[in-house]
Amino acid sequence: MTERIGTLAIVGVGLIGGSLALALRKHGAVGRVLGVGRSRANLDEALRLGIIDEVVSLEDAAQADIIFVATPVAQMPTVLMVLAPTLAANSVITDGGSTKQDVVAAARTALGSKFGQFVPAHPIAGTEKTGAAAAFATLYEKRKVVICADAETSSTARDRVAEMWAATGAELHAMSAAEHDDVFAAVSHLPHLLAFALVDMLAGMPQADQYFNYAASGFRDFTRIAAGSPEMWRDISVANRSALREQLSAYRERLDRFDEWLAAASDADVRAIEASYERASTARNAWQRHIEHGEPMPKLGGGGQEE
Amino acid sequence: MTERIGTLAIVGVGLIGGSLALALRKHGAVGRVLGVGRSRANLDEALRLGIIDEVVSLEDAAQADIIFVATPVAQMPTVLMVLAPTLAANSVITDGGSTKQDVVAAARTALGSKFGQFVPAHPIAGTEKTGAAAAFATLYEKRKVVICADAETSSTARDRVAEMWAATGAELHAMSAAEHDDVFAAVSHLPHLLAFALVDMLAGMPQADQYFNYAASGFRDFTRIAAGSPEMWRDISVANRSALREQLSAYRERLDRFDEWLAAASDADVRAIEASYERASTARNAWQRHIEHGEPMPKLGGGGQEE
Repeated sequence: MTERIGTLAIVGVGLIGGSLALALRKHGAVGRVLGVGRSRANLDEALRLGIIDEVVSLEDAAQADIIFVATPVAQMPTVLMVLAPTLAANSVITDGGSTKQDVVAAARTALGSKFGQFVPAHPIAGTEKTGAAAAFATLYEKRKVVICADAETSSTARDRVAEMWAATGAELHAMSAAEHDDVFAAVSHLPHLLAFALVDMLAGMPQADQYFNYAASGFRDFTRIAAGSPEMWRDISVANRSALREQLSAYRERLDRFDEWLAAASDADVRAIEASYERASTARNAWQRHIEHGEPMPKLGGGGQEE
Repeated sequence: MTERIGTLAIVGVGLIGGSLALALRKHGAVGRVLGVGRSRANLDEALRLGIIDEVVSLEDAAQADIIFVATPVAQMPTVLMVLAPTLAANSVITDGGSTKQDVVAAARTALGSKFGQFVPAHPIAGTEKTGAAAAFATLYEKRKVVICADAETSSTARDRVAEMWAATGAELHAMSAAEHDDVFAAVSHLPHLLAFALVDMLAGMPQADQYFNYAASGFRDFTRIAAGSPEMWRDISVANRSALREQLSAYRERLDRFDEWLAAASDADVRAIEASYERASTARNAWQRHIEHGEPMPKLGGGGQEE
């Protein structure tokens, strides 16, 4: 069913790029895999592990059937600029970046008339580990991949990228780049910012030693995402700052309201606090049952959050 | 070594109270265990499970050697009021509440001249489950118990409570009630408020269904504490609102600064974002290695969080 990819070039052979290559190899969905990267040691490791067959330059990678750009998002404009002049007419470029509007804008600038050959995508998968050695063939099984094609995207290119991801066992989803950036600002980028901000605040306080001494499992889970890569999350925060600031603004208003409720602490204020906690707990528990046991989610978004 | 407790009364025979009884029984550190509670079904379950030997009234519980108040904090003022008149001269009251200054104030009011017989304490342990059936004998092993005795607390009473907790396998710590409330506002109460606020905000938005559909493991961990009991966390938030508002105010200032950095996004702003993420990631990773592998924590609290 799936058309085999003759040559796949991976730009940035880390967890994301390396795992795609291994998954496609496992399912016999790719012929030759080329690797591009800045660290020779990492590329040698990728060769040794059988992730890639050959190390090539970025210019040569532009001749592959599909070029998967799996670098940090901040490097993508430069990568696309270098790929553009030698990009073959039948080649497709796709990416694995966590933000999409900025990558689409960079691709439009870099690729010009070849912009239709670019298929923006975001595989929702990852671990805390990085580098080729962290890659594994089953990373994308049953994970979501969001494809953000638009009217200018070649439908042939889009279908080839969709087929490629389907071959890894991923679930395919489609949305616009703007929708994507709003969704991930809400459920990923804002939570990361909030966790980083809290840990930095507490670590900088005079009582920091004591705070960390008494922090327990709730704190551990809440701040797990603050262990992530500062460079990567800086890039994501800045790349998606417009959507992120919208969510952050709504959240700051929430916190202002909590402060008012706690300051006055009238019966009505206390009820408002409880009502907010109650709605959160109900939604969180329903979602947990949904992801764990497949129970249907209740209808959310009724806007009933105002008391 | 440890003096055996003749009679222990547990007021509120749930996870916290029931587990104390089971732990002391396991170590032969208690004679008879009395249970007090509002739900007859729960008390029957506690009898059936061998957690308690007898169900008594609150007035009768006041004759026990040690009375452990393990009700929600909002009920403690009433419980202490009822215990006060019949409290035996050699009896000790202690509690397991998550906030301490409010409980101390309630005990002072309720107990009057008998206030020295009250030993404020907070075992840092728990699970998501509630009720007598959730209790187990090893809940407190190697967990911290904070005792917040002050100058007015009888040192005999304090030592008996310390011995009791030591018999469960817990680690004993001492701090003032004010210190306690500051520490737990920072590492527990604020994180809970932040998680509840985020989930409620997202659940109330028009795109809520889509948000929860794309939320992944980072969101799951970050919001796990928003599945907690709304009533319990309402009580804690209100009881400790002074310390909580101080931490919340510092946090809101942090978020204001992040918004400025993201709005301007100059090179200096982007560096400030990265520096904050970097400090957070460094502290969080050091703490993880500390709790997992016992590695020493680096010196924190240098106040170096300002760029």
